[in-house]
Amino acid sequence: IKEITWTPDTVQKGGFAHYMLKEIFEQPDAIHRAVHAVSEETLPSSLRQASSITVVACGSSYHAGMIFRYLIEPVCGIPVRLELGSEYKYTPVPFSDVIIGISQSGETADTLSAIRKGICNNVKTVAITNVLNSSITRSAHDTILMHAGPEISVAASKSFIAQVGVLMQIVNILSGGRCHDILDHARYALEQVLLTDLTEAVDLCSKAQHLFYVGRGVFYPVMMEGALKMKEISYIHAEAYAAGELKHGPFALLSPDTPVIAICTPGPAYEVMLGNMKEMKARGTPIVAFGNEDDGDVSDIADVVIPLPKAHMWTQVLTSTVLLQLLAYHTANRLGREIDMPRNLAKSVTVE
Amino acid sequence: IKEITWTPDTVQKGGFAHYMLKEIFEQPDAIHRAVHAVSEETLPSSLRQASSITVVACGSSYHAGMIFRYLIEPVCGIPVRLELGSEYKYTPVPFSDVIIGISQSGETADTLSAIRKGICNNVKTVAITNVLNSSITRSAHDTILMHAGPEISVAASKSFIAQVGVLMQIVNILSGGRCHDILDHARYALEQVLLTDLTEAVDLCSKAQHLFYVGRGVFYPVMMEGALKMKEISYIHAEAYAAGELKHGPFALLSPDTPVIAICTPGPAYEVMLGNMKEMKARGTPIVAFGNEDDGDVSDIADVVIPLPKAHMWTQVLTSTVLLQLLAYHTANRLGREIDMPRNLAKSVTVE
Repeated sequence: IKEITWTPDTVQKGGFAHYMLKEIFEQPDAIHRAVHAVSEETLPSSLRQASSITVVACGSSYHAGMIFRYLIEPVCGIPVRLELGSEYKYTPVPFSDVIIGISQSGETADTLSAIRKGICNNVKTVAITNVLNSSITRSAHDTILMHAGPEISVAASKSFIAQVGVLMQIVNILSGGRCHDILDHARYALEQVLLTDLTEAVDLCSKAQHLFYVGRGVFYPVMMEGALKMKEISYIHAEAYAAGELKHGPFALLSPDTPVIAICTPGPAYEVMLGNMKEMKARGTPIVAFGNEDDGDVSDIADVVIPLPKAHMWTQVLTSTVLLQLLAYHTANRLGREIDMPRNLAKSVTVE
Repeated sequence: IKEITWTPDTVQKGGFAHYMLKEIFEQPDAIHRAVHAVSEETLPSSLRQASSITVVACGSSYHAGMIFRYLIEPVCGIPVRLELGSEYKYTPVPFSDVIIGISQSGETADTLSAIRKGICNNVKTVAITNVLNSSITRSAHDTILMHAGPEISVAASKSFIAQVGVLMQIVNILSGGRCHDILDHARYALEQVLLTDLTEAVDLCSKAQHLFYVGRGVFYPVMMEGALKMKEISYIHAEAYAAGELKHGPFALLSPDTPVIAICTPGPAYEVMLGNMKEMKARGTPIVAFGNEDDGDVSDIADVVIPLPKAHMWTQVLTSTVLLQLLAYHTANRLGREIDMPRNLAKSVTVE
């Protein structure tokens, strides 16, 4: 007689220690399905005709909406108004042609109210959700399903990457397919970073009570999502800042006990981010920096470098997002947290 | 022979222990001058004709801009796009008729760049600043001087209230003088709260490593400014959240060691804020609540109540701002901080 060493639970986790890690590893498939969730033919006509867009969302979905804003505005020239679901009720009227509501569960109360408010004001509405036939799909004029598959962990991972995938595809379509190849190869880009060794960064983060996450441009919302992940599952007080805002206040908190996670990749913000990191370093602040894999200037300043494969900015948005999830996961795991079920949190917030 | 017990420094502080406290107490005069800094006759015509406005600012000035957004949109129906100075450079083109740049010193590098970008794009620009003949006044088409008087403390207090005063006056003028009386009496409203006893709240805050500040609607930016003040001068990691967002993540951090500062005044958000406070209380989180002076529902839930005199919402924006400054000041003082010159910070940020 042999005793079995598995339980139904370990089978469902597919050998992973936690659902969250499993779901992080499912992201190459999730991004692939998400970018094929909408096409030239199926794009809602309201989006094709939009001269301005309002995005309403909460939590991680809000960060996906903010990435969308940074990507679509320079490429398509369509202004995006971004609103927190809970605050949208205090806005008098929709100021845009279209409202996009983003909600993994499709049941987020505040995002649902925003869609309904749009409908009452004769504005076209589009839902981006993971759940077929959820409340938001029954309210909105059009729905794009992100096809992330079931997500068990309370903290969003693959549903976030899928939201970003859908939103990137929308920008790609509206710009005439300019980023088609990038999206087509996104799954391989994600596979490349899943096994990155983060031990040194985890050593630093797991000892901290406070962390600051900083980025510029589209990497600012990427860092907001990274900080939220860290908060949710490790309970470390991680806060994100647009790097340029640090000097307008939070600089006072920097010390050898407050590591900063920074991202410094080639692009318009590169030089000024290098400068910002040097200033933080001068305060004795330990720095964990995401930078291109062979960037000597970044590794000269940073205490720990998390290397990103060289790639287009869109691809690096995706790869850095995954690495930030893994950083939060491994830090929380080191601290022995209940990763899949963080205290006080629920998977979907169905009340105000 | 008698020894004198004063130094030139104590004279300049007018008997106050710190410049910051002196400047907080100068706010009744500052708000009075600020609301008279612009009138029906002197309002720049670009603002009178604006169908959309972009506000660009950094730090405290950004929070003033956010208060403006919450006030003008429902009253005048003019959409406001709010941008961090340091992030505005990544926006492709101005999407509004007018850009308002807000900077106490008039030398904030990122805000200046935004004004210049507006001019290059043939957009009308308006500067709101405290310093006559500063760089921003020489760049912008129109300038409104806020007349706060010299501010020595690095952390903004009277210059912030003056910015809010100017911006409220703009909304008042554009709405046909609807809030004239409120602004006319603002100085007396501020005088009423300057001597509020905050000992109990300071007892709680000065022991904390982490604080969350939460509000809804226009009180969300008020709380953002309150948290920034606390960060800057006490070095406590205070972070502000729109109250409705707490459940999408940061709830995981709530515990008996993380007091929450909440604001719950009559208005559309009242009932839902009461509910939010009960949920936080259920996690054992100590709550310091700003509420109307005789509100039994608020005092039933909160551990400490900071009473606000009953008044119009605009007035309570001003009074709660002052009380949040005093809370930060007295907490920092209890902790023995260098209040007027916080570590790592400069009064005006003239580099990127």
